[in-house]
Amino acid sequence: MEAQEQEEQEQLVTPWKVSAEKGGKIDYDKLIDKFGCQRLDQSLVDRVAGLTGRSPHVFLRRGVFFAHRDFSDILDAYEKGQKFYLYTGRGPSSEALHLGHLVPFMFTKYLQDAFKVPLVIQLTDDEKCMWKNLTVEESQRLARENAKDIIACGFDVSRTFIFSDFDYVGGSFYKNMVKIAKCVTYNKVVGIFGFSGEDHIGKVSFPPVQAAPSFPSSFLHLFSGKDDLRCLIPCAIDQDPYFRMTRDVAPRIGYHKPALIESSFFPALQGETGKMSANDPNSAIYVTDSGRDIKNKINKYAFSGGQDSIENHRKYGANLEVDIPIKYLDFFLEDDVELEHIRKEYGTGRMLTGEVKKRLIEVLTEMVERHRRARATVTDEMVDVFMAIRPLPNMFN
Amino acid sequence: MEAQEQEEQEQLVTPWKVSAEKGGKIDYDKLIDKFGCQRLDQSLVDRVAGLTGRSPHVFLRRGVFFAHRDFSDILDAYEKGQKFYLYTGRGPSSEALHLGHLVPFMFTKYLQDAFKVPLVIQLTDDEKCMWKNLTVEESQRLARENAKDIIACGFDVSRTFIFSDFDYVGGSFYKNMVKIAKCVTYNKVVGIFGFSGEDHIGKVSFPPVQAAPSFPSSFLHLFSGKDDLRCLIPCAIDQDPYFRMTRDVAPRIGYHKPALIESSFFPALQGETGKMSANDPNSAIYVTDSGRDIKNKINKYAFSGGQDSIENHRKYGANLEVDIPIKYLDFFLEDDVELEHIRKEYGTGRMLTGEVKKRLIEVLTEMVERHRRARATVTDEMVDVFMAIRPLPNMFN
Repeated sequence: MEAQEQEEQEQLVTPWKVSAEKGGKIDYDKLIDKFGCQRLDQSLVDRVAGLTGRSPHVFLRRGVFFAHRDFSDILDAYEKGQKFYLYTGRGPSSEALHLGHLVPFMFTKYLQDAFKVPLVIQLTDDEKCMWKNLTVEESQRLARENAKDIIACGFDVSRTFIFSDFDYVGGSFYKNMVKIAKCVTYNKVVGIFGFSGEDHIGKVSFPPVQAAPSFPSSFLHLFSGKDDLRCLIPCAIDQDPYFRMTRDVAPRIGYHKPALIESSFFPALQGETGKMSANDPNSAIYVTDSGRDIKNKINKYAFSGGQDSIENHRKYGANLEVDIPIKYLDFFLEDDVELEHIRKEYGTGRMLTGEVKKRLIEVLTEMVERHRRARATVTDEMVDVFMAIRPLPNMFN
Repeated sequence: MEAQEQEEQEQLVTPWKVSAEKGGKIDYDKLIDKFGCQRLDQSLVDRVAGLTGRSPHVFLRRGVFFAHRDFSDILDAYEKGQKFYLYTGRGPSSEALHLGHLVPFMFTKYLQDAFKVPLVIQLTDDEKCMWKNLTVEESQRLARENAKDIIACGFDVSRTFIFSDFDYVGGSFYKNMVKIAKCVTYNKVVGIFGFSGEDHIGKVSFPPVQAAPSFPSSFLHLFSGKDDLRCLIPCAIDQDPYFRMTRDVAPRIGYHKPALIESSFFPALQGETGKMSANDPNSAIYVTDSGRDIKNKINKYAFSGGQDSIENHRKYGANLEVDIPIKYLDFFLEDDVELEHIRKEYGTGRMLTGEVKKRLIEVLTEMVERHRRARATVTDEMVDVFMAIRPLPNMFN
């Protein structure tokens, strides 16, 4: 029975679990159909380029952010001179972030810079306290540690508000949580999130906490009197269920639906069958990894699409579809020309896996080193400033 | 089928619905057994008298507060010089309070004065916003209006903190909500409160909000560093399910179980089959009723245990077990000697229903007038002071 169940296993994407069909990769087209979001096509990427007057981010050019909901409405409004705000977040469950964790923040920083808009970043320490059974204190400590990594991504302090749920829930934010909760039945959250009767009620209570930042009135110190301000949420597509629910509720409580721009998952070193796992340190490159760690992990664990002998490799070339070094370069090698060159050489067998891995190690080591240098400059005082409940002057200039 | 179902209807007591067995009265002994609380016996009443050096409140002497959980532990600790704090509350669903609403507040004021302890009063405007489908604004307006009636009961501002959930939820209070929610499964709240899958998740999320004030760490401005302080909750017994849940959770999160002292329901004018209904203005005396209103309601609606003719009445006497004027005098006629006299004269038929009602009208009119005069002196500034997030100086002196 078990074997059969596994064979028939469908792909599963929820905020807590991502798994592909048995033996396969995540099918993102299927996901778009199932979730009912839209594909982010080239014309939208071109519009972003035109509106911002700068080259679109690698993650846009290469389809890392591949799906959206109403992103075109955001652009329409922007074109008419109406700004918006960005909302993203992180569940602080571990001390060290891996590269997959950085993806939404790198992209959000680009959006903030390109569109010159304010940004709120939610650290769901309450969620992690409940799901991972951490103490309140440990969740809050992790939230602050993670905030340092987030700040190290280069956000503009004059446009960015970072908050921990444990510190921030209350006031108009709590009022919005209640308004949202009133509109969602238990059966509905079971349908969306798959809770069971044995789950604790903290889980059932949480979706409105993640939904509330989608509405400007949750942040009176930022957006008082700006209830019409639209919200754009950059996130990985596993967070879509929260915002499907939020979008369902929004018109019933008199707010705009938040727009979304959604990424695929950054693959594990072992291959593209899901998200990286925080439980297996060898499945991911962490921002705390040394150059030596990175070299070892890539050489030892990064799944190769190369052939099993040099002869065969020269003859057939690498299978780029399953090759992790190429996938990682897709994310992080900014030079389009060089990337195209490597893909061609490797795909036709003129370049060997070892050479591609060598280049990837260089790219990642430099990136991680850069991140580590930036993080070392983030002081506790800077965290306090980013997390201070304050107005953001000149948010829209 | 329906008739049969009604005949077989068991008594039901939840925070939202109270109904007796078909044709009967609430059976409080059965309730004590079902809920698993303890009867408040004469020896406890005597201990209260001894410890406080004053005559016990009418509601204690006459068994209006008839059940408890661990009240004896509170008294044991008090005897050793350890104080406690009081917690009670109100769901602000209507503008005008009726006499039944005043019962827990009158009793809580007595406890505060007799034991010289601090008091927190929760106004669950979030609950009423969710259950009664009021707007946030209307719930908050009602909370402030109700706060005026509560203050008019004479609470000591130097020992009393009144708060609205919408204003106050956050910080350490929210942290306790999360800690509590982690310990309670959905199946458990269904068992306790009878929620269904079609209920919205705001309802499922609410029990931790009412539980949190049972723990001193929810009020850092009052009880910082006093995590060991015990809590005593005076309330009507329909609130017991919340605190059964709270007591279950308390040791798992390192807190004392709150103690409870629980009242029976103030009966409707039409008879003692449940609580008064806010939906039928003729079922209750309101603090806004005029002398004429009171006279009319008592004469017209107060269910009489008197006989159907004067002859029979003189012969058999009144049935005091079902007589509402006598029940109301039990609550509000303070003079034990006079009450005993009336019971005897009326029970033996020497006194007529009209005479008893006349005395009741005097008692209630005076009480309601006194309340109205007191309420007229409660200014918005006073409400602000009672609701200010502040330390309470000399709480325990």
